[in-house]
Amino acid sequence: MKAIIKKGPFPGAELIDTQIPQIGPEDVLVKIKVTSICGTDLHIYDWNEWAQNRIKPPIVFGHEFCGEIIETGKKVNNLVKGDFVSAETHIICGKCYQCKHGQGEICSNVRIIGVDIPGCFAEYIAVPASCLWKNDKKLNPEYASVQEPFGNSVHALFADDKAIEGKTIAIFGCGPTGLFATAIAKASGAKEIIVSDVNSYRMKIAKKSGADYSFNPKEVDVVAKVKDLTGGVGVDIVLEMSGNAQAFQSAVKSCRRGGRVTMFGLFNRRIDVDFNDDLIFSGRKLVGITGRKIWSTWEKTAELLKSKKLNINPIITHRFKLEEFEKGMALMQKGECGKVILKP
Amino acid sequence: MKAIIKKGPFPGAELIDTQIPQIGPEDVLVKIKVTSICGTDLHIYDWNEWAQNRIKPPIVFGHEFCGEIIETGKKVNNLVKGDFVSAETHIICGKCYQCKHGQGEICSNVRIIGVDIPGCFAEYIAVPASCLWKNDKKLNPEYASVQEPFGNSVHALFADDKAIEGKTIAIFGCGPTGLFATAIAKASGAKEIIVSDVNSYRMKIAKKSGADYSFNPKEVDVVAKVKDLTGGVGVDIVLEMSGNAQAFQSAVKSCRRGGRVTMFGLFNRRIDVDFNDDLIFSGRKLVGITGRKIWSTWEKTAELLKSKKLNINPIITHRFKLEEFEKGMALMQKGECGKVILKP
Amino acid sequence: MKAIIKKGPFPGAELIDTQIPQIGPEDVLVKIKVTSICGTDLHIYDWNEWAQNRIKPPIVFGHEFCGEIIETGKKVNNLVKGDFVSAETHIICGKCYQCKHGQGEICSNVRIIGVDIPGCFAEYIAVPASCLWKNDKKLNPEYASVQEPFGNSVHALFADDKAIEGKTIAIFGCGPTGLFATAIAKASGAKEIIVSDVNSYRMKIAKKSGADYSFNPKEVDVVAKVKDLTGGVGVDIVLEMSGNAQAFQSAVKSCRRGGRVTMFGLFNRRIDVDFNDDLIFSGRKLVGITGRKIWSTWEKTAELLKSKKLNINPIITHRFKLEEFEKGMALMQKGECGKVILKP
Amino acid sequence: MKAIIKKGPFPGAELIDTQIPQIGPEDVLVKIKVTSICGTDLHIYDWNEWAQNRIKPPIVFGHEFCGEIIETGKKVNNLVKGDFVSAETHIICGKCYQCKHGQGEICSNVRIIGVDIPGCFAEYIAVPASCLWKNDKKLNPEYASVQEPFGNSVHALFADDKAIEGKTIAIFGCGPTGLFATAIAKASGAKEIIVSDVNSYRMKIAKKSGADYSFNPKEVDVVAKVKDLTGGVGVDIVLEMSGNAQAFQSAVKSCRRGGRVTMFGLFNRRIDVDFNDDLIFSGRKLVGITGRKIWSTWEKTAELLKSKKLNINPIITHRFKLEEFEKGMALMQKGECGKVILKP
Repeated sequence: MKAIIKKGPFPGAELIDTQIPQIGPEDVLVKIKVTSICGTDLHIYDWNEWAQNRIKPPIVFGHEFCGEIIETGKKVNNLVKGDFVSAETHIICGKCYQCKHGQGEICSNVRIIGVDIPGCFAEYIAVPASCLWKNDKKLNPEYASVQEPFGNSVHALFADDKAIEGKTIAIFGCGPTGLFATAIAKASGAKEIIVSDVNSYRMKIAKKSGADYSFNPKEVDVVAKVKDLTGGVGVDIVLEMSGNAQAFQSAVKSCRRGGRVTMFGLFNRRIDVDFNDDLIFSGRKLVGITGRKIWSTWEKTAELLKSKKLNINPIITHRFKLEEFEKGMALMQKGECGKVILKP
Repeated sequence: MKAIIKKGPFPGAELIDTQIPQIGPEDVLVKIKVTSICGTDLHIYDWNEWAQNRIKPPIVFGHEFCGEIIETGKKVNNLVKGDFVSAETHIICGKCYQCKHGQGEICSNVRIIGVDIPGCFAEYIAVPASCLWKNDKKLNPEYASVQEPFGNSVHALFADDKAIEGKTIAIFGCGPTGLFATAIAKASGAKEIIVSDVNSYRMKIAKKSGADYSFNPKEVDVVAKVKDLTGGVGVDIVLEMSGNAQAFQSAVKSCRRGGRVTMFGLFNRRIDVDFNDDLIFSGRKLVGITGRKIWSTWEKTAELLKSKKLNINPIITHRFKLEEFEKGMALMQKGECGKVILKP
Repeated sequence: MKAIIKKGPFPGAELIDTQIPQIGPEDVLVKIKVTSICGTDLHIYDWNEWAQNRIKPPIVFGHEFCGEIIETGKKVNNLVKGDFVSAETHIICGKCYQCKHGQGEICSNVRIIGVDIPGCFAEYIAVPASCLWKNDKKLNPEYASVQEPFGNSVHALFADDKAIEGKTIAIFGCGPTGLFATAIAKASGAKEIIVSDVNSYRMKIAKKSGADYSFNPKEVDVVAKVKDLTGGVGVDIVLEMSGNAQAFQSAVKSCRRGGRVTMFGLFNRRIDVDFNDDLIFSGRKLVGITGRKIWSTWEKTAELLKSKKLNINPIITHRFKLEEFEKGMALMQKGECGKVILKP
Repeated sequence: MKAIIKKGPFPGAELIDTQIPQIGPEDVLVKIKVTSICGTDLHIYDWNEWAQNRIKPPIVFGHEFCGEIIETGKKVNNLVKGDFVSAETHIICGKCYQCKHGQGEICSNVRIIGVDIPGCFAEYIAVPASCLWKNDKKLNPEYASVQEPFGNSVHALFADDKAIEGKTIAIFGCGPTGLFATAIAKASGAKEIIVSDVNSYRMKIAKKSGADYSFNPKEVDVVAKVKDLTGGVGVDIVLEMSGNAQAFQSAVKSCRRGGRVTMFGLFNRRIDVDFNDDLIFSGRKLVGITGRKIWSTWEKTAELLKSKKLNINPIITHRFKLEEFEKGMALMQKGECGKVILKP
């Protein structure tokens, strides 16, 4: 089969021809229908510091996908050939303290598809049955593939599982997860959605996705704007999805006293924080999240995607053949795209 | 001014001409734009047992309304002449245990507009400034009037303030609050909404308002249908809005193990309950609610009504002049209506 | 080995000599150190209506115990020979909706030790390793055995996992679970604990266990007393642990507006409820609970029993040899005991 | 009357003779029985940077106290002469967004006793009736005075109002609030309490107050110790009460994945944070808190102090006459004390 492989400890990746993977008794073999590129994949491609420390090439990478089950292992009894599935890409141990206490999304022994085990930038993938989500057969396969990052945005927004109706929201960073979060907040009844980014291409998509206001920190004082729009109070919920140090400072100050800042975007360095004013006197919370609640995030995700209340088409901006992956990587490097789809 | 008065301890009501009310230093005078009829008003009109025990005629009744502020008391500083307002009809004491602990909606000393103090079936009403909600001037005045019962439905659905996205819901009773709840659940991302009533006129409105399925208990076994539609599990949340004894039995059995039944509809007698199977072994909750959380329910309400995600026009079925109130009462007696509007 | 068996569909039980059970690959064999009698065991012994419908004799019954692991199945890797263990008596499926959503305590396919599979009124028991809780070796074996019903009381009190410090509590029913709940509420910082029962023997134990007030409904108006002691407000949390119809009526009226009534005691018939006043207008909750949260209830249980803050010795009133089980059953029939211990 | 005054913008303070304050219609006059010194008072005395920006001398300072009501304003109807009271030192506006949403502890317009209005280092104080808490007359006056900082510790520990039973806790910083938190955690059923400080005098008090383990970061690797004691998992809840930059780094790493770090101690500079590993990948929360929940923290506080389950006597280490205040300040500068009491 065709597959994209990270061959060694250096930038780039290669299209190869390789064996279809074998499955164990608790695995299934999936024929990939659609796969999509995550920021993490770009890090692996670019071979950044994180990738150098984490990835052990050679490995087929990629983890966002959907496809059809071709074969099931002997012990698999909850899925059958022909099922249309996507994957929770965090394969959890089920035995650590977190897993035993309903927090599998931060399993101490997590293995990640396309990072720790072979990924989905290929024609076929073998994965444990336990990490598969069965899709409605009518679901658009592109939506089915992006459920994984869309789920990040759902988890970021619903980190405490509270209703969003009537809440004010600010989203810093309009990459695909920020854009998805914008659409989700809109569909979930947010009162006002304010987004901020330096990328005007992406801010335009944010406006189409439901943002009421969008601000470029190079042009305006974003915190002042947020305060103006909220009667001086600040927003109830901030989603930090940029991984940018300056954006973080504005993010926390945009949050109302007693409000919540969800931290999702990864930073390329340590950040200095004024805990006294920005957290303690103001009674704010910084809530780190990663992955998706298993399976409650997926349940919300599936329902939101099925509803007519949000339209993620403007966020899926480019489609390529699997063999054209370098075009997708180049667009992401420039930031001139939303979510990029690859089709084997 | 014109007003509808409950004259004495007997059925019926009368249109009279009376003085415009005087306001105290903390009150405001509102010119009524739209008022709407609640089931409680029908009880007062019909002079049922509850009304006989609670109402002290003569009194102008009615409590759902919106209007424009004409005059403000000396000590009122958060509202001005010209403001477009609706009322939280529960005037709370602010001093009881519940009020001091953030549960004003169940104040021990609550006084209710149109029940304990003169109401809004009139051209003007005097109310404490503290119970007014300032509307967006662009809000449809009919929507502004029905915010109070709409808020009951919001509170019923969001009783624990949790996100509804991806949840399955069953609603028993398709009077106006049941219909509003259907529309709200749909707009809030419910996975599946199942309604039940014996009134086919109202069930048709429920389908237009977002119900995925509607069942008449005279025709089918509703519990069996709910189980079928949920893989044998039952729904996550049940709203009991019928006040019907048989409906209650089906409502609780339609709820999944560990799920929640919100109790809102008032019964005309005591109900017998199988606590062992229906509550204890099954880990279910029965949650009584009344009124609206002050002001978090109103914040959700305002936002939902502003959004394009729900359409309550099918639920507002009739409009009359104030002096035609008896036509409205007659329709409500027959159940051949959704919400009925009166305009002074 | 010696074992107590329910031989057939009629009252009573018998001491027999039988084979030590065999274990499967995921089971362990435990040598019983201490076992204790639950109300359920009395129902089986008495052969009441519930038992007639549920139990399929012949079966060794009993489910509260602790003991030492003698042998482990091939696939057991979290426990070893010599471990001192107690059992979560609810063996859950791990696959139903509830299990997948963190509510294993109300698993749809639960099997119960001593009810659905052979029990612990014996010298040895074979149980799945997955349902065992490893005790601190220094824990008093009598305490280790009663952790299961003690855990019921912990779950009843902490049904919503909120802090108890400063809360007022009323407990209806002073059987062992009511008595344990009294001691737990005291140790957890309850402001005032009021208990009610008709059994003066048990009420005396309640006073020793931490009850601030105890009332016999045959002598006083319990609701009036609760109101008096709480400034007319009622208590924050009520635990209904009596299964008595009249007690339920007092229980719900003793709860403050907006408070919670935990329903745990099983009734021998349907109960009629005034939902309007007792639940809806008052914003109360009735929360059914059964079993124990797995494993968070056990964690609280272990810690409470380890602490010096509560003393359950007054609640464990009688100790017999296994072969003297009929003495224990007789005492329980009369209600002249707290928890009764049996030692093989 | 005697009073301690901050005379001008320079270090130190002075004992003066001044007028007994006058009260307004909503105020009461309290004769001080006991007052105690807070770290904030030391900052005012030392005239540190924060004090220079915030305090406008001349002002009588001090805010922790208890006393007897001598006179009540005309409009005061919930308190009478002779009542034994303590003060919630945060005087809240009741009108801002936070106040209206049940978060008065972070009121946007808070005024603080002894900071923004005259304080309690005096024989008498005039305060709004609305900020007074009525004490049980049997409460030890020293305890009554320290309820305010004790309440900080209660709020820090119960930031999410969840039960503490069975939870593991680490406390960084053993000043009075850290010591109180240790005693509270012990009394509330914490499974294991680990404290850390560089001050061996205070660590000894921590051990007496309920700490299971105490570590000096100058001697051992505290994070490694915490991990060892928790099977590699980390603790459920961390209280950062030191305001020390290095302690913060250890605090966050001592917390388990998915756990909570309460931020209370104030820092003298910005802190650099590794958000990727310490918050995002690990799903931790940093929760800023200040003040006390009004009044739910006070309810827990009163109950804990009344119970026999904790002993704060070892934490109250020194008692002086009001005129000896400089002895207290000197001890606090050296850290050779727990809580210091002053008696007028």
